[in-house]
Amino acid sequence: MNSDREEVLDVARRSQDAAATVRQLTRAVKDDALGRIAQALRDNADQLARVNEGDIARAVADGVDASLIDRLTLTPMRIRAIADAVVEVIELPDPVGDVVRGYTLANGLQVRQVRVPLGVVGMIYEARPNVTVDAAVLCLKSGNAALLRGSSSARDTNAALVEVMQSALAASGVPRDAIALVPGETHASVDHLMTARGLVDVVIPRGGESLIRRVVEGATVPVIETGIGNCHVYVDAAADIDMAVNIVLNSKTQRVSVCNAAETLLVHQDILASFLPRIITALAASGVTIHGDADFVAAGAKAGIEVPVATAADWAAEYYSLDIAAGVVADLPAAIAHIRRWSSGHTEAIVSDSATAINEFIAGVDSAAIMVNASTRFTDGGEFGFGAEIGISTQKLHARGPMGLPELTSSTYIVSGAGHTRP
Amino acid sequence: MNSDREEVLDVARRSQDAAATVRQLTRAVKDDALGRIAQALRDNADQLARVNEGDIARAVADGVDASLIDRLTLTPMRIRAIADAVVEVIELPDPVGDVVRGYTLANGLQVRQVRVPLGVVGMIYEARPNVTVDAAVLCLKSGNAALLRGSSSARDTNAALVEVMQSALAASGVPRDAIALVPGETHASVDHLMTARGLVDVVIPRGGESLIRRVVEGATVPVIETGIGNCHVYVDAAADIDMAVNIVLNSKTQRVSVCNAAETLLVHQDILASFLPRIITALAASGVTIHGDADFVAAGAKAGIEVPVATAADWAAEYYSLDIAAGVVADLPAAIAHIRRWSSGHTEAIVSDSATAINEFIAGVDSAAIMVNASTRFTDGGEFGFGAEIGISTQKLHARGPMGLPELTSSTYIVSGAGHTRP
Repeated sequence: MNSDREEVLDVARRSQDAAATVRQLTRAVKDDALGRIAQALRDNADQLARVNEGDIARAVADGVDASLIDRLTLTPMRIRAIADAVVEVIELPDPVGDVVRGYTLANGLQVRQVRVPLGVVGMIYEARPNVTVDAAVLCLKSGNAALLRGSSSARDTNAALVEVMQSALAASGVPRDAIALVPGETHASVDHLMTARGLVDVVIPRGGESLIRRVVEGATVPVIETGIGNCHVYVDAAADIDMAVNIVLNSKTQRVSVCNAAETLLVHQDILASFLPRIITALAASGVTIHGDADFVAAGAKAGIEVPVATAADWAAEYYSLDIAAGVVADLPAAIAHIRRWSSGHTEAIVSDSATAINEFIAGVDSAAIMVNASTRFTDGGEFGFGAEIGISTQKLHARGPMGLPELTSSTYIVSGAGHTRP
Repeated sequence: MNSDREEVLDVARRSQDAAATVRQLTRAVKDDALGRIAQALRDNADQLARVNEGDIARAVADGVDASLIDRLTLTPMRIRAIADAVVEVIELPDPVGDVVRGYTLANGLQVRQVRVPLGVVGMIYEARPNVTVDAAVLCLKSGNAALLRGSSSARDTNAALVEVMQSALAASGVPRDAIALVPGETHASVDHLMTARGLVDVVIPRGGESLIRRVVEGATVPVIETGIGNCHVYVDAAADIDMAVNIVLNSKTQRVSVCNAAETLLVHQDILASFLPRIITALAASGVTIHGDADFVAAGAKAGIEVPVATAADWAAEYYSLDIAAGVVADLPAAIAHIRRWSSGHTEAIVSDSATAINEFIAGVDSAAIMVNASTRFTDGGEFGFGAEIGISTQKLHARGPMGLPELTSSTYIVSGAGHTRP
């Protein structure tokens, strides 16, 4: 146990040493390394896919379900797509050195608040091995060292990906340890990483609720929580009904396994008669099961569509499936109260043509993103124009909502004087 | 124990309810409440001072030392000064609603990132009862509810201050629970506060290293670390010697009991002969004891001034007293390596006329603030022009360096469409 811990801390120390170099690299050097990483991934696509087949065979033997197998799979085509994404990161501006604020004080002192890298970024994530590359290159571009802890199911794939990236780093004169894997496959290695205070500057868990809860409760290193999304769509009395149907369908069904998909629909009682039959029929036609309150159950019965009764578990659920909880609310404050009670603080949408209702919704709801007459699916770094995304923060400190490269930085105040002392 | 915890959580729930109202208050309402708080403090200055006398008598009976008694003491004059500080907060701009970023996407979606309050801010602090008022009014101005846990030595004073402020809130139509004290005097109440996840949005510990360590290690609520300052002054080969003497003296002696005072002096070996006699004599004349390396010990002997030998404990020390650790370094990289090894990441100063040396120092040092030819004492919200300060963050996430009102906010993305859905 203790020697396991020492092994993790040793790697973290090497990451910290690498971070001291990486923070000072120019954009040109970092972009060169990224280009070499992309090329190395393409050059080794077939070999990487073969390594991945081993992980998949192991997962199949372990009886892992099909959707997880799919997330675990890297074909040569997928690897080339990952390499293309690395090339896109080259085009993004380097946040390091950006002056956030700058001014001159009355006494002549010049104050600049400048973006600097965080240092060592610990990523803790589940099956998808593409995260290994995404996270590593975003950390490198923003001047950080990446210390990666993927799932044991992707063990060999992750090791091979990191090996390929490290060779590319070496060729660009960047320390190999700028991208490293946490050693050890046991759960304990996660514990060692998230308690490596003084060596690791932040841990970012990406995955299911239990992983995130475990990290939040056990970490002594600062954490950025990501990706739990119990998102709501509220259809107001003043909504355009056609628009509302489209937004609900898109929010729920455009992609179901993602954190910005809608999980609950709330409808103002004034439009119960006109809206419920429309949306129940449309959702059923898209294969969505509605878990409804009494009004939805009754409207479903009229339409000949079975609507199971929603329980507290439904209001709390992040289904990640073709299911939605649905209820009628007396008014806008009731919708806000429901959202404050059940939301995970990710994204909530309002469909309304009333400026008053929209403003009340914005003032009352406290989430990372609020969509006004738009699908919840737009809460995404790519959609927001960030070019890349390390995750979507659902916490309030440091970063909230989609996190791009600037969110992987801290800042330093640089104060320049001419011998200034305090009187 | 469990009922103690329930008592703390009950108060936190009331804080959360109040926060939902306070976040929506206009600046006019908040400023009115601040004005009433200032007036109420003035009106009750004599009564508050009498309550404070009780706390002081208890502390004296407990054998508390004189400096702590001083920090604990509220005279009517000090209370009026606190009220004046509240009036200054009225003049500060309200950060809530500020648009941090705003742009329109190619598809017509309008994206705005808008500042919103954090929610419930838990403050955990030591003796000084003025923090009770400072923290409460900064939280209120930034739309947050303040949940305060002061030290038991200031128990009655804090309770009386909160009572006075709550009455002023009620008169302005602001929920009384927007400013609340954590019940219970035991250490356990700190634990309950910092693990009240889902009710409390952030805890900010202000105090000594052991308090801060305890909160960082035990909290499940996100933490902002403040105020541990092992600050360094590096005097480069290319320094102006007179300037260097002034900056070292000011950094060390202008006020010793604060986190931005210098604790270690590092000197480039090329100026050993010219600088060491000057600074040793000057520091000794100001009553400062130098804990030196071999060069300082030798130079001290020559000047007839005793210089105790510095140990690892000295390089690590945050003296908060008229003591300084001092050593000679071979070059700038050695100074940077020393700082990276021993610094708490608060403030480091370089005295140099070499642009190359200054740039290397800035690139190599990773602290909240870097002073170039200026005293470390300038790292301060007031000096930086923030108008008020809730503390100085020495962590990298969320806020780093002096924290003003904007640092007490989070943000929300508000995305406005016209029925936009993702294709």
